[in-house]
Amino acid sequence: MTAPFAARVDAQSPEPGSQALIADRVVGQSLPAPFYVSQEFFDLDLDEIFSKSWLFVATEAEIPEPGDFVTINFGTRSVIVARDDQGRVRAHHNVCRHRGARLLTEPNGSTGTIVCTYHSWTYGMDGRLQYADAQAPGFDKSCFSLRSVHVRTIAGLVFICLAEEAPSDIDEVAAVVEPYLAPHRLAEAKVAKQTDLVEDGNWKLTMENNRECYHCGGHPELLNVFFPTWGYSSTDAIPDRLAPAFDRYRRATAELVDIWDGHGLPYPRVEELDTRATGFHIERDAMDLAGESFTLDGTAACTRLLTDIPEARLGRLSMHLQPNMWLHITSDHALLFSVIPIAPDKTLVRTTWLVHRDAVEGVDYDLDRLTGVWEATNQQDADLVALAQQGISSPAYVPGPYGPSEFQVEAFVNWYITMLRQRLGISAVRAASDAATA
Amino acid sequence: MTAPFAARVDAQSPEPGSQALIADRVVGQSLPAPFYVSQEFFDLDLDEIFSKSWLFVATEAEIPEPGDFVTINFGTRSVIVARDDQGRVRAHHNVCRHRGARLLTEPNGSTGTIVCTYHSWTYGMDGRLQYADAQAPGFDKSCFSLRSVHVRTIAGLVFICLAEEAPSDIDEVAAVVEPYLAPHRLAEAKVAKQTDLVEDGNWKLTMENNRECYHCGGHPELLNVFFPTWGYSSTDAIPDRLAPAFDRYRRATAELVDIWDGHGLPYPRVEELDTRATGFHIERDAMDLAGESFTLDGTAACTRLLTDIPEARLGRLSMHLQPNMWLHITSDHALLFSVIPIAPDKTLVRTTWLVHRDAVEGVDYDLDRLTGVWEATNQQDADLVALAQQGISSPAYVPGPYGPSEFQVEAFVNWYITMLRQRLGISAVRAASDAATA
Amino acid sequence: MTAPFAARVDAQSPEPGSQALIADRVVGQSLPAPFYVSQEFFDLDLDEIFSKSWLFVATEAEIPEPGDFVTINFGTRSVIVARDDQGRVRAHHNVCRHRGARLLTEPNGSTGTIVCTYHSWTYGMDGRLQYADAQAPGFDKSCFSLRSVHVRTIAGLVFICLAEEAPSDIDEVAAVVEPYLAPHRLAEAKVAKQTDLVEDGNWKLTMENNRECYHCGGHPELLNVFFPTWGYSSTDAIPDRLAPAFDRYRRATAELVDIWDGHGLPYPRVEELDTRATGFHIERDAMDLAGESFTLDGTAACTRLLTDIPEARLGRLSMHLQPNMWLHITSDHALLFSVIPIAPDKTLVRTTWLVHRDAVEGVDYDLDRLTGVWEATNQQDADLVALAQQGISSPAYVPGPYGPSEFQVEAFVNWYITMLRQRLGISAVRAASDAATA
Repeated sequence: MTAPFAARVDAQSPEPGSQALIADRVVGQSLPAPFYVSQEFFDLDLDEIFSKSWLFVATEAEIPEPGDFVTINFGTRSVIVARDDQGRVRAHHNVCRHRGARLLTEPNGSTGTIVCTYHSWTYGMDGRLQYADAQAPGFDKSCFSLRSVHVRTIAGLVFICLAEEAPSDIDEVAAVVEPYLAPHRLAEAKVAKQTDLVEDGNWKLTMENNRECYHCGGHPELLNVFFPTWGYSSTDAIPDRLAPAFDRYRRATAELVDIWDGHGLPYPRVEELDTRATGFHIERDAMDLAGESFTLDGTAACTRLLTDIPEARLGRLSMHLQPNMWLHITSDHALLFSVIPIAPDKTLVRTTWLVHRDAVEGVDYDLDRLTGVWEATNQQDADLVALAQQGISSPAYVPGPYGPSEFQVEAFVNWYITMLRQRLGISAVRAASDAATA
Repeated sequence: MTAPFAARVDAQSPEPGSQALIADRVVGQSLPAPFYVSQEFFDLDLDEIFSKSWLFVATEAEIPEPGDFVTINFGTRSVIVARDDQGRVRAHHNVCRHRGARLLTEPNGSTGTIVCTYHSWTYGMDGRLQYADAQAPGFDKSCFSLRSVHVRTIAGLVFICLAEEAPSDIDEVAAVVEPYLAPHRLAEAKVAKQTDLVEDGNWKLTMENNRECYHCGGHPELLNVFFPTWGYSSTDAIPDRLAPAFDRYRRATAELVDIWDGHGLPYPRVEELDTRATGFHIERDAMDLAGESFTLDGTAACTRLLTDIPEARLGRLSMHLQPNMWLHITSDHALLFSVIPIAPDKTLVRTTWLVHRDAVEGVDYDLDRLTGVWEATNQQDADLVALAQQGISSPAYVPGPYGPSEFQVEAFVNWYITMLRQRLGISAVRAASDAATA
Repeated sequence: MTAPFAARVDAQSPEPGSQALIADRVVGQSLPAPFYVSQEFFDLDLDEIFSKSWLFVATEAEIPEPGDFVTINFGTRSVIVARDDQGRVRAHHNVCRHRGARLLTEPNGSTGTIVCTYHSWTYGMDGRLQYADAQAPGFDKSCFSLRSVHVRTIAGLVFICLAEEAPSDIDEVAAVVEPYLAPHRLAEAKVAKQTDLVEDGNWKLTMENNRECYHCGGHPELLNVFFPTWGYSSTDAIPDRLAPAFDRYRRATAELVDIWDGHGLPYPRVEELDTRATGFHIERDAMDLAGESFTLDGTAACTRLLTDIPEARLGRLSMHLQPNMWLHITSDHALLFSVIPIAPDKTLVRTTWLVHRDAVEGVDYDLDRLTGVWEATNQQDADLVALAQQGISSPAYVPGPYGPSEFQVEAFVNWYITMLRQRLGISAVRAASDAATA
């Protein structure tokens, strides 16, 4: 029999309840297993995080004309995001007010009215019930509008919030990020490709995976243009072996600052990831090699640039927003990611590539080259998330320590726990302090 | 941000328990979501509805000879319905009394004895244990008969009841419906086809779908012969645009009444859908076009009629029985439907087409023509049920109002709630009154 | 309506809790349904039986060299069984101590170190953390060894125990069984084939199925060489029709006793199936026809025998060990079975065929002939287990009586209930007495 030198799994310790787990959260560590594997926390996440936060769900480029719509499904919920006859973006629950049938079943399309397949109840794009056949005389159509959902657009990005009252800080966030985003004219772009990838892991593992480059050794394609020094907590933390890369990074940054200044593009990092309801991060950053785009050599993938700025080398504008989005914008295209929980161990990652509305596939861009690096990266991340889900599901899992380069993972978890505590009225057992970046 | 004019989804309202939901049911509206989506209500439905009501499960035409059997599976239950050596129809649980193995695994067949595959315990078709190898001397075979199930045949229809005590009103119902059914000699017919369709919805949505023709615009094939005026709550409710159809209907009815009287076929509507345990509805009705059968032009699909009555134009005899059956009988064939719950969101619809025992496929009838209208209609209904299940699963669903033409849906729901209240000893919070046909 | 002569299913009897079911267990009968179908008992089985008993998981022949490993998954747990650099067999949880990722994903292989795919944390085969990139200065690697699991080898069989404290009687059991097993040199053998079969039934049904030959009429291939008199509770119980087989059995046994004595092979039956934590049974027994191996004619399937004993006709050495293993060893090969629960109604049966390390496929043995009898037998058993699971899942199932030849089934159930009572601190309501072998 081996003499074990590490702690054993104690199968008998009673499971603490979700309230205690939220109260007891230890900073600087990954979360206990129930957060990632239990149906109880999944339901809590849908109710307290995904039903009460602003969620990135689409771009205006997907619904350019009145009558255009996309449907967004997460959990058992389905929401119609559509442009109404006045050109405004609207959001409604995709549920008929008669006997509850789902109304629109296509992921996207265009329609003049929303007609229920079951008994032909007919709604306008503004959600008002326009027609219901064979009703008794007293029937009042105005009582049966579709149930509406908060919607907010920021420089072409469409956010919804399912709560009765949506977090009001979206205006403050918009005021900060709009100047960064607006020059790239996303609302006027077109969708070059959109993919839906189902990862076999909890949505928080998907987000945590996105919030550090400690694992970027597993992304050979991305590493061509992503400086390997990204994500280190400080200049001091960068190891000697990365000194040449760091030199390249500093030179590239200095050159880009001139370019950004020249075109009036804001670039400083703003990082408010865990200090507000609509936690976010935005910054411009340099890219390696040609420094233009997410391609293997770093040159632009689309010769028709997104905007009129005659400069292919703009580095990348990157933004995160809690709980479910990140994006990268280069001179030639924009890459948007939204994350939608499906089950405790299933998560949808939707990736959208935008290019200039007039860019022609096969002429201005080759689709495989445009999407290749991130299609590979997405699949690599999905594989890592699945491994994490598998291991965390074991009773032998214990939370482990975040290293210095995982400070944005810590910030995400910190935001998540803070939101649960606020919305559920739970006090912290331990002081959260600023250990997040320990 | 939109100014919402409809109520928002309040994700925080606590879920009322099943008892409260049953007590609080509001007449004139669809049921709250848990009735359709929760495992708790599904289990309740199996225990209180499907284990305590008379269920239509087969026709005698499926088991004409001694030793013939069908097996009926719903939930985890399996029941053998067989004809014993004396020609009587018997029903037993399909579970060996030794170590519990399922005995018969085929959906139907013929056998002299029921032999367990595991250790060869052997039962007669009457359920008695005839043989068990290698038992100790004191072993008493008479203690290990198969557990029996109540069974009742009515004019060739086979009903079972799993309860200790079956609802006694089946005799009263049989006394009413047998004179309608008997002339069509279903026990002597043969099965032309039987299909099993799994619908992606709760069994109550399947039943509710069947109980109104408000949605019949979605049934282009069926609408050829089904008068579009069916299901209106009163003559006054029929809209002007249907006046020509209503005229045709009245003329056809007048002609058929003469035919029915001439052949001694009872035809008045008897509707006791929610006033007894074995709620039912029966009536004869006219059909459009040729008025003979469920075909695109209304002419008979089988030239060999079901009975000796030399009249192809008999309209249809239609019958419902709570909780799980409906049927239509025309001069040339009978169409029987049984509904079996599989999961909260999965339901089996079994459809059986009967023709005269001597009718020959390809000579007297073309199978595709015989079954085409209802195969299409069944699939259309399955699609509608799936949409309803999807929408009702959303937290945004709220019960909606039944219109006047949905009075039989209301009657079904009323019966269902009444049964749950009676069997669980729950009092109504609101008076049910006669709002059901509001 | 039939006049039922057997008891009806009473759908209303309240479900007794798991504690009551464990306390109330009736000897001489199969267990009540919840033991086989409920998630609650499945979780209990994983926690109290599979996490606290010694489990057979592999043979040393599968990991002959340092760095060789197998991964064993049951439920959400995954364990690495590996040979370390010193040649010792070690077992560790397959969970990275950083952010919990599963480490090794292949069922088996060979590696110098265990490197996490996610962030490259690197462990030695002894479980110690050797390397973690980019950590803060105070990071102490010695705190992050893989969590170890008890491991014990007996004559080439590898057992693990997940508990903090493993049952100590493994030493007593090893002292008994090692002299039986050692002469067959399993640690030096090689794997000729390994199959994983998923049975659609509870793991206890798999074990119960293995513990009697009352059902062996369903194993035509195996019956060639397995004396049909095996498993009768006493000589008196053997029916007259089996007298010729019993004569053959007695003659074969007498001849084998001389051979076993001549080679110093212990053979008496030792049966301590339900009287200790590590319940077991071991004995040598004769086989029918040529008496050498599990082939259709009983002749050896591998011409290169497992050991240097120059005798193809050794009968079989058979051993059971609670809760999850059995084996058969003939002169030419060894057959090992391990049973791993997957879900209440899903169980993995892993079968391993070992032959002499130098035996060459196609020369010394034909793989199909070596494995044919038990591949067929395994599938037949899987089919029977599925039937039992289906029937027991019905509310109509009631526990049935074990016959005299099912005494080892009774012993297994008795062991199982005894372990649950001991580990959960539950007293028996009825005296267990010695009814187990009634």
